[in-house]
Amino acid sequence: MDVLEAIITRRSIRQFLRQPVKPELLEQVLEAARWAPSAGNRQRWRFVVVQDRSLVQLVKRLSPGISSVPPCIIAVCSDPPGGKGRFDEYLSIVDCAMATQNMLLAAHALGLGACVVRSFSSAGIRELLGLPDGVEPELLVTLGYPRETPEAPPRRPLSEVVFKDRYGARQQSDGKTIS
Amino acid sequence: MDVLEAIITRRSIRQFLRQPVKPELLEQVLEAARWAPSAGNRQRWRFVVVQDRSLVQLVKRLSPGISSVPPCIIAVCSDPPGGKGRFDEYLSIVDCAMATQNMLLAAHALGLGACVVRSFSSAGIRELLGLPDGVEPELLVTLGYPRETPEAPPRRPLSEVVFKDRYGARQQSDGKTIS
Repeated sequence: MDVLEAIITRRSIRQFLRQPVKPELLEQVLEAARWAPSAGNRQRWRFVVVQDRSLVQLVKRLSPGISSVPPCIIAVCSDPPGGKGRFDEYLSIVDCAMATQNMLLAAHALGLGACVVRSFSSAGIRELLGLPDGVEPELLVTLGYPRETPEAPPRRPLSEVVFKDRYGARQQSDGKTIS
Repeated sequence: MDVLEAIITRRSIRQFLRQPVKPELLEQVLEAARWAPSAGNRQRWRFVVVQDRSLVQLVKRLSPGISSVPPCIIAVCSDPPGGKGRFDEYLSIVDCAMATQNMLLAAHALGLGACVVRSFSSAGIRELLGLPDGVEPELLVTLGYPRETPEAPPRRPLSEVVFKDRYGARQQSDGKTIS
């Protein structure tokens, strides 16, 4: 699937068929994550792939953001061996989010559906998945074969979110700047 | 370009030709950003596209992470009109990072090069680009036609970053779990 098409046609999928994700597709999704850029090429992301049905259900219970039981949940975690300051934390979140976007696009291109979940009990996930001290669950990705084809939620037009050179300055179609 | 190919062949491009980015390509890059998912479909991202040469040079001076003057810099900003707590801030960073990854992939597919920059003076960028109170510059993206074709930096193998069901548990090729 063409990358621009994948970007535009990808939807957040929250309802899944029960069938497990084929291992070779799952591997391609994880492979996509691995090729995201990371600060200083640190690649401090770690991916805990949960497919055990009872464990998936427990993760769901800890995650108000998950609306139905998926066949697979990928916990995207940051594993900072070094500094743990605010900026380092920020870098880890960015790296995990970029890897996650790669996974969403790969999943869509492979006929799978996925959704990013940010609303979950970090402490609960840490305990359930046995995350060591310092490893943070940043995002959850639910993954499986789609059981829905949602409409695209409305998007703000570019004219509303893009500025030229300075915040608030917009570009007219003739190239001139208006404020 | 196929999305999986784009994900794997994309490189961080830090050296650019001086020629400006064609407006129709720039628009496609921004369009890609617009289709990223966002928490609650808030789309609180804002993109300040800097192409004025002297302004680009000033942004570079504030950004140790930028190694040469690109024809274009996109400042990806979060614009949270509502809550400003820690979790809200976290959501904004994730949303901006996912939109940024879309831009990197779109740029690559369109024959452009791009690099994410996280090292810059936030206060300086805020003042220079006239960001209102509450609008945060999260990431900078340098963009242009590539003047280099870098090798892929080494990536950790999946076996090192992927765990099965619990942190530390690895999956053998025969499907059995080892710890």
